[in-house]
Amino acid sequence: MGGYANKILRVNLSERSFKEEKLSEELIMNYIGGRGFGIKILFDELEKGIDPLSPENKLIFVNGPLAGTGAQSSSRVAVVTKSPLTGTYLISNCGGYFGAEMKFAGLDIIIVEGKAEKPVYIWIKDNEYEIRDASDVWGIETEETHKVIRRKTSGSARMVVIGPAGEKLVKFASIVSDRRTAGRGGVGAVMGSKNLKAVVVKGSKKPEIAEPDKFRDAVKDQIEYYKESSFFGPFHNLGSGGLTKILYDVGMCPTYNFKQEELPNIENFSPENLGKYVVDHHGCYGCMLTCGKTVKNVKGSYAGIAWDAPEYEAYWSYGPNCGNTNIESIIELNRLSDQYGIDVISTGCVIAFAMELYEKKIITKEDADGLELEWGNYEAMEKLLRKIVLRDGFGDVLAEGVKRAAEKIGKGADKYAIHIKGRELPAYDPRAAKSHGLNLITTPIGPNHNMGWAKQELLGIPKKVDPFTLEGKGELTKYNQDETTIFETGITCIFPPAMTMIIVEIYGKLLSSATGIKKFEDPKYLWKVSERIWNLERLFNIREGFSRKDDSVPERLLNEPIPRKAGKGQIFEQEELLDQYYKARGWDNNGVPTKEKLEELGLGEIAKKLNIK
Amino acid sequence: MGGYANKILRVNLSERSFKEEKLSEELIMNYIGGRGFGIKILFDELEKGIDPLSPENKLIFVNGPLAGTGAQSSSRVAVVTKSPLTGTYLISNCGGYFGAEMKFAGLDIIIVEGKAEKPVYIWIKDNEYEIRDASDVWGIETEETHKVIRRKTSGSARMVVIGPAGEKLVKFASIVSDRRTAGRGGVGAVMGSKNLKAVVVKGSKKPEIAEPDKFRDAVKDQIEYYKESSFFGPFHNLGSGGLTKILYDVGMCPTYNFKQEELPNIENFSPENLGKYVVDHHGCYGCMLTCGKTVKNVKGSYAGIAWDAPEYEAYWSYGPNCGNTNIESIIELNRLSDQYGIDVISTGCVIAFAMELYEKKIITKEDADGLELEWGNYEAMEKLLRKIVLRDGFGDVLAEGVKRAAEKIGKGADKYAIHIKGRELPAYDPRAAKSHGLNLITTPIGPNHNMGWAKQELLGIPKKVDPFTLEGKGELTKYNQDETTIFETGITCIFPPAMTMIIVEIYGKLLSSATGIKKFEDPKYLWKVSERIWNLERLFNIREGFSRKDDSVPERLLNEPIPRKAGKGQIFEQEELLDQYYKARGWDNNGVPTKEKLEELGLGEIAKKLNIK
Repeated sequence: MGGYANKILRVNLSERSFKEEKLSEELIMNYIGGRGFGIKILFDELEKGIDPLSPENKLIFVNGPLAGTGAQSSSRVAVVTKSPLTGTYLISNCGGYFGAEMKFAGLDIIIVEGKAEKPVYIWIKDNEYEIRDASDVWGIETEETHKVIRRKTSGSARMVVIGPAGEKLVKFASIVSDRRTAGRGGVGAVMGSKNLKAVVVKGSKKPEIAEPDKFRDAVKDQIEYYKESSFFGPFHNLGSGGLTKILYDVGMCPTYNFKQEELPNIENFSPENLGKYVVDHHGCYGCMLTCGKTVKNVKGSYAGIAWDAPEYEAYWSYGPNCGNTNIESIIELNRLSDQYGIDVISTGCVIAFAMELYEKKIITKEDADGLELEWGNYEAMEKLLRKIVLRDGFGDVLAEGVKRAAEKIGKGADKYAIHIKGRELPAYDPRAAKSHGLNLITTPIGPNHNMGWAKQELLGIPKKVDPFTLEGKGELTKYNQDETTIFETGITCIFPPAMTMIIVEIYGKLLSSATGIKKFEDPKYLWKVSERIWNLERLFNIREGFSRKDDSVPERLLNEPIPRKAGKGQIFEQEELLDQYYKARGWDNNGVPTKEKLEELGLGEIAKKLNIK
Repeated sequence: MGGYANKILRVNLSERSFKEEKLSEELIMNYIGGRGFGIKILFDELEKGIDPLSPENKLIFVNGPLAGTGAQSSSRVAVVTKSPLTGTYLISNCGGYFGAEMKFAGLDIIIVEGKAEKPVYIWIKDNEYEIRDASDVWGIETEETHKVIRRKTSGSARMVVIGPAGEKLVKFASIVSDRRTAGRGGVGAVMGSKNLKAVVVKGSKKPEIAEPDKFRDAVKDQIEYYKESSFFGPFHNLGSGGLTKILYDVGMCPTYNFKQEELPNIENFSPENLGKYVVDHHGCYGCMLTCGKTVKNVKGSYAGIAWDAPEYEAYWSYGPNCGNTNIESIIELNRLSDQYGIDVISTGCVIAFAMELYEKKIITKEDADGLELEWGNYEAMEKLLRKIVLRDGFGDVLAEGVKRAAEKIGKGADKYAIHIKGRELPAYDPRAAKSHGLNLITTPIGPNHNMGWAKQELLGIPKKVDPFTLEGKGELTKYNQDETTIFETGITCIFPPAMTMIIVEIYGKLLSSATGIKKFEDPKYLWKVSERIWNLERLFNIREGFSRKDDSVPERLLNEPIPRKAGKGQIFEQEELLDQYYKARGWDNNGVPTKEKLEELGLGEIAKKLNIK
C-alpha cells in the first residue's frame, strides 16, 4: 500500500513512553486519513466530559495519504483535540512542511497523551524518539524557538511549537510551524497544558506510491487545473489578503465588531494598495500556488519590520473589525500573533469586543488598565494583545474568549460578544450570505473560516447563487461542507477547492493511485466517507451535550438588520435555515442524526452506544 | 601555495562590472592577509580627502589565509574602508561564517567600488557573479533580509547585510552577518551610500593546506591551549558579557556617560545573574569557544523575546553608561541594534550623551521630541534608538555621532561628547588603566574595544601590571597593539589572544603550515609585518591630516579625577604617555613615523611620497 506510512506513534508524556501502532484496514477504508483519522481516534479514545486542559485530553497530529508525495497542496497537518474554547471537537489545520516531514519520518499520526512534569519537547528522528527538556525555550517566541531547537536537533528539522500564549493557556492560543499556524480553537493551550513546547521531526524516507504512472498523470491533471484557473494569478500575487476589499464589497468583512457600519478608508485594503507591501512569495511543501507573502513596513513606528503577510482573516480581524485601516499596524499585529502563538481571528475579535464595550461605556479606561480603546487605536491594540498573551490585568479576562469574558464583565456585555458555541466568528456575516451563515452555525468546531466555504454565494463560483434567498440553502450548505471534508482527508489545502482549482474526480485519482486503493477513485465513495466524518463529528458534540440550541448566531445578527450595502436590511433567518439543513442532513429536529442515517453511514454501533433511536 | 584562494574580486557598482585579480607575492609576503591586505589596498587605491560616503570610497571585505581551514577562531572577515564617522582609516571585523564562505567561493578579497543607481545586492556563487535588484528588501531589518535573500539565492548562502540604519547613512551604522556584526565606525553607512543592501556568497571549494600533517599538529596545539586555559570555561558559559561586573570592579565599565559615579544595582550584571538569561551556546565557523549565547526575557514588557546575548560592550553601553540596570531592556536594545544594523557602542554612547545634556538642562524634553531622558529610562532609550535609525527629529542630530551632534547643539554640549577622533569610546576609562588609555587614543581607527587590549592591566594576564603607573606604558601599549595586529592577519578572533589562549608561536606554525610559506613561522617576521601594518595605518591618517592633536581624550577624562573606586582620584596623563609611546614606536614628537623607521619597515617609498624627512 502506498501513500501511508502505516504507523501511529503514541507518546505518553506522563509516563514518558512511546508506542508504535499500525493503521487498521477499517480505519483506512472508512476514514481515508487526515480529518477522518482524527475524529475517529478522538471519538473512540476520549471520555465524555473531560476537561480539555487536563492530562485526559489528547492532542493528535495527523497528515494524510498524500502528504510528502508530489500531489499539489496536500501535505498539511491537522491538529485534533477537544477545544478548551468551546468544549466541542476541534480540528485545526496547518500548512508548511511539518505534515510532509512526519511522513518522511514514517508517521501518519502522532497521539500525545498525558502531561509532562516539566516543559519538554518531543524529538523524532525517523524511528528514534526522545522526550527532551525544554525549560530553556519555555517562555520564548515561536521564531526563536524554531531557531534554538534546530540548533539542538537538526538544522533542517521541522516542528510545531507553541509561544507564550500557549504556555499561559490562553483559550485561543495557536500552534505555529515556520510561521504557518494551526490557529483556532485553542490547540496551543492544549499543548501548553501538557507542558509540551514543541514536536520536532526529521525524516529521511519518501513515501511509496502504489501506481506511479497513474499518480504522475493525476498530478499533471491537477497542475493543469491550477494553471487554467483565473484565480491562480491573483491568489499567487496577493494570497488570501487580496480578498479583503472584494469581500467587503459583497457585504462580508464585517466592521466594528459586526456593527457593520461603513468603514472610511476601506480602500487601504484594495489589492493595489496591499500589493505595495509585498516583498516576495513562498509556499508550503509541494504547492505551486505559493500564496505565502512577505510584506514590509518602511515607514512609521513599525519601519524595518517585515514578516509573512496577514491572511484575509487577519487583515479583517485587526482591521475593519476594530475600525482600523492602518495597514502597517496590522502587519505588526499579525507578526506579534505569530510570534506569541495566538489566533489572529479570536484575538482581533476579543479586542473589537473590548472596543465596543468601551464605546458603550460598559468598561472604562481604568477597567482596561489605562488603555484608551477607541476604534482604530492600534497602539492600544498592540498593548492589549501583549496583555492577553501574558494574561496581565484586563488581558487575563479577554484571554478566556468573548463568551467567558462577557460573563465575567456582566452589565450586558454579552450583547456584544460575537460568537457561536463560544468561538469568535471569522470574517463573514451570516446575514449577508445565508448558506455561509448556516455553515458557520453548524460547523462542529464552531464558526470556521475555511470549512464549507459558500463559494457560490461569496464569489459566484462556479456559478452565482443569490446570497439572500433561503431556497435550497440547506442542501447547498451540506454540499460545501462535505466537499471540504473530502479534501481534508488528504490533507489538501482548502484554497484550491474553494477556488475550483481542484475537483473531487482528480482528488480521487490522486488518492487511489497513491495508495493503490481502487475504491478511493469513486467520487460517490468519497462523498460517503465525508458524510460519515461529518456525522461522527456531530456525534462527538452531541455526546458532550450540544444540540440545536448551540447552532445559533448572537442576537445582533439575528435581529439587527445590516446597516450598509451590499447586505443592507438583511437579518439571519436562523430557524428556517436550520430546519432545511437538518432535513438535508437526515437529522432530527433537534439536530441529532437519525438512527437510519447513522446506520446508512456504518455508524450504527455508535448510535446504539449513544442511545440514538 | 595553500591557505589563500589567490583571488581578488573587484566589483564596480557604477559600471556594474566584475574583475578578477590575483594576489601579488609582494602583498602576501609583506602583509600576510586580513588587516594587512586591507590597509595596503586602501592606502594605495584611495585618494586623499575623498568623502567617505561618496562613490570614490571603497568597501573592502577581506578574510585571511586561515579562513575556512580547521584553524580555530580564524575565519573572520574584516571590512576596510574610510570611516564616515572619523575620516580616518577604518577596519571593522565580523565573526560568523561569511569569511569562510568567501574562501569556499575562492575569494580572499572583495573590493566594492562606485555606487549603484538603485538598491542592489551582489550574488556570488563560486565564480559566477551577479548584481541583483534589492529594492524589495530595501528598508527591512537584517534578520528578515537574510531570510528573504536566502529564499532568492540559496538556503545555505552566507551574507553581509545592512539594515535601515545603513540605508539612512547613520554615521555609526553596522554591517550584520547572521547576527554577528562589523559594528563600528560606520561601515554600514558606507555600504548604504553605495546602495548596496547585501553581499551574498555560496561556495563549494575547501581551501588547500600546503603541509597537512604539520597543520594538523598546529591545530592540535592550538586546541590544547584552549582546553588548558582557565578562561575557556567562563568564556564559553557567558561570553564577553560575563566581564561586565568584573571590569566594573577594576574601575572600567564607565557609568553615566563617563561621569563614573557608582551605579546602584550593578549586581544585576554579575555573572550569576546574567547566566540566568542564557538559553544556549553557539559559535562562529570553526571555533570551539562558542562564545555566542542566546538569552531570553520571560517577564515584563519584553517577555517572549529571545535573541543573541549582548556582548560586554552592549551590556555596558545600554546599561551602566546610561544608568540603566534593567537587563531585559538591554537584551531588547541589543536585539533592535542587530535588527536595524547599528553599532551598539556608539548608539549607547550617543544616548548617554543626550541623557547627560538632559540632566544638565542643555536640552529640554521638547528638544528631545517629548522624550524624558532621565538616566535609566529604558523606554525612552528604545524610542530614541528608533528615531536615530530613521533619522527622525532629534534622532537625526544624534545619528551624526556625539562630536557633530555637540557642534550642532552648541551651548557647551561638547563638554559631554565623549569621543576620540570623533568616535565614541568603548567600555573602558583611560584614567583607570594608563596603557589601555594610551592604546585608545593612538589606535588608528579611533578608540576600539578589541585592539591592543591591555590584558596585563585589565585582568592581570599573563601577569599583573599596575594600571595606574606610567612607567613602561609606551612599550607595553606598542606590544599589545602589534600583537593584535599579528593575529588579525589570519584573521583570528582577538578573544583567544586577549585571554592567552593562543600565542604567536602557535599562530606562526598555523600560518606557515597552511600556506607553505616558511617565513611565517618566525615570530620576529610576524612582529615586523605587524609593525609595518600599524605604521601604514598611521600614514593613512597622516595623509588625511591627523596628528598628535587628534591622539587625545575628552577634557573630562583629562582633568576630572575618577570619583569612585577602583580608579578613584585618577586622571589621564596624556602628554607624558604620548611622549613615551611615540618614542617606543620610533615616531617623532608630532606622532609622525620617522623616515628611518619607515625605511626599516620597507615603507621608504611611501615616506618619500608623503614627503616625510
